Amino acid sequence: MSKSGEATSINIPAEAKSSSSGTRAAPVVSTTKSTRLARTGWKKGMAILDFLLRLITLAAALAAAVSMGTTDQILPFFTQHFQFEAQYDDFPAFLFLVIADAIAAGYLAFSLLFSIFTIIRHNAVGVRLLLLILDTVMVALTATAAGAAAAIVYLAHDGSSSANWVAICEQFDDFCKQTSGAAVAGFVVALLFMLMVVMSALCIRKH
Amino acid sequence: MSKSGEATSINIPAEAKSSSSGTRAAPVVSTTKSTRLARTGWKKGMAILDFLLRLITLAAALAAAVSMGTTDQILPFFTQHFQFEAQYDDFPAFLFLVIADAIAAGYLAFSLLFSIFTIIRHNAVGVRLLLLILDTVMVALTATAAGAAAAIVYLAHDGSSSANWVAICEQFDDFCKQTSGAAVAGFVVALLFMLMVVMSALCIRKH
Repeated sequence: MSKSGEATSINIPAEAKSSSSGTRAAPVVSTTKSTRLARTGWKKGMAILDFLLRLITLAAALAAAVSMGTTDQILPFFTQHFQFEAQYDDFPAFLFLVIADAIAAGYLAFSLLFSIFTIIRHNAVGVRLLLLILDTVMVALTATAAGAAAAIVYLAHDGSSSANWVAICEQFDDFCKQTSGAAVAGFVVALLFMLMVVMSALCIRKH
Repeated sequence: MSKSGEATSINIPAEAKSSSSGTRAAPVVSTTKSTRLARTGWKKGMAILDFLLRLITLAAALAAAVSMGTTDQILPFFTQHFQFEAQYDDFPAFLFLVIADAIAAGYLAFSLLFSIFTIIRHNAVGVRLLLLILDTVMVALTATAAGAAAAIVYLAHDGSSSANWVAICEQFDDFCKQTSGAAVAGFVVALLFMLMVVMSALCIRKH
């Protein structure tokens, strides 16, 4: 009778429950319970996957920010007035990638706590919704930063004849390699955030 | 009795329903029904808002793509070997913005059909989930394109001393104005897509 009480506790007044026969209600109850158990397992699995994804994205965001933030190449020759040096903060787009991915890394570290909360309480729809909204903001932020960095990397490689901007990668080859790598890492971060948004949406949907 | 039958039709065997007293169940039933009606109204309102937002975003995406795609400035002076002309497709980042926002506009026109479907059938969770996933992809695509275009616009305005790239906006002022406008429109498109993702998430969540 305790099983039947559990499954019919939604909207039914007490006298309806007590008058129902326990034996006939049993098959309905067991099906509902097994479905609910499967759902619980699925949600727990998704919550754990979300936690792992956040760890991976944190690593990728740190890799992007640090690899871009340490880019600095000084050429071995110089003139009387000028030493040839290329640093990431000479280009605002590269600086923006460092800042954006540092913010993303900070947010991810913070969001791990919420992610743990959803593992323990897999029905925490409000927390998941909050994570989904903030993840969407992060998709836009990291994608913008990666796009900006990629545009400058492209220009450094190929230049632009109509603007008379020369390609600088022949001289600054290490600089170009490192910034290209950071831009790619930036795109990976944006992609992982997209994946997390979709996963959160799958978890909060009605069944 | 028909009301009570409607509200208690979830999991209860027939004999339980028939034995419950209609008078006592009435308050519970009416509350459930009014809540459900309020939810239906809210969902319908959100679906209509979603449709309107898609129309606005479609206009913004077309504005971004067309204004960037028609950018072309020929300077009134030229040398023997060279005529000074700046076109959007000289810069791959600008071309990418045109393509990305054209794709976004095409997707939005198509998604209007799905949006109408959610107005008629406000419980179509599958359709909303599909729109949420595709909208998330569009956030990333349009944000990347806007970021790339903004990076080049910035460079055109300020140049970069370390790469020896000169600012071209003093000569190509109309070109710069129009591309800046298109980049801003590109960011507006990304922002509107973000809003739609959040709205879809609010609609598909469990209550």
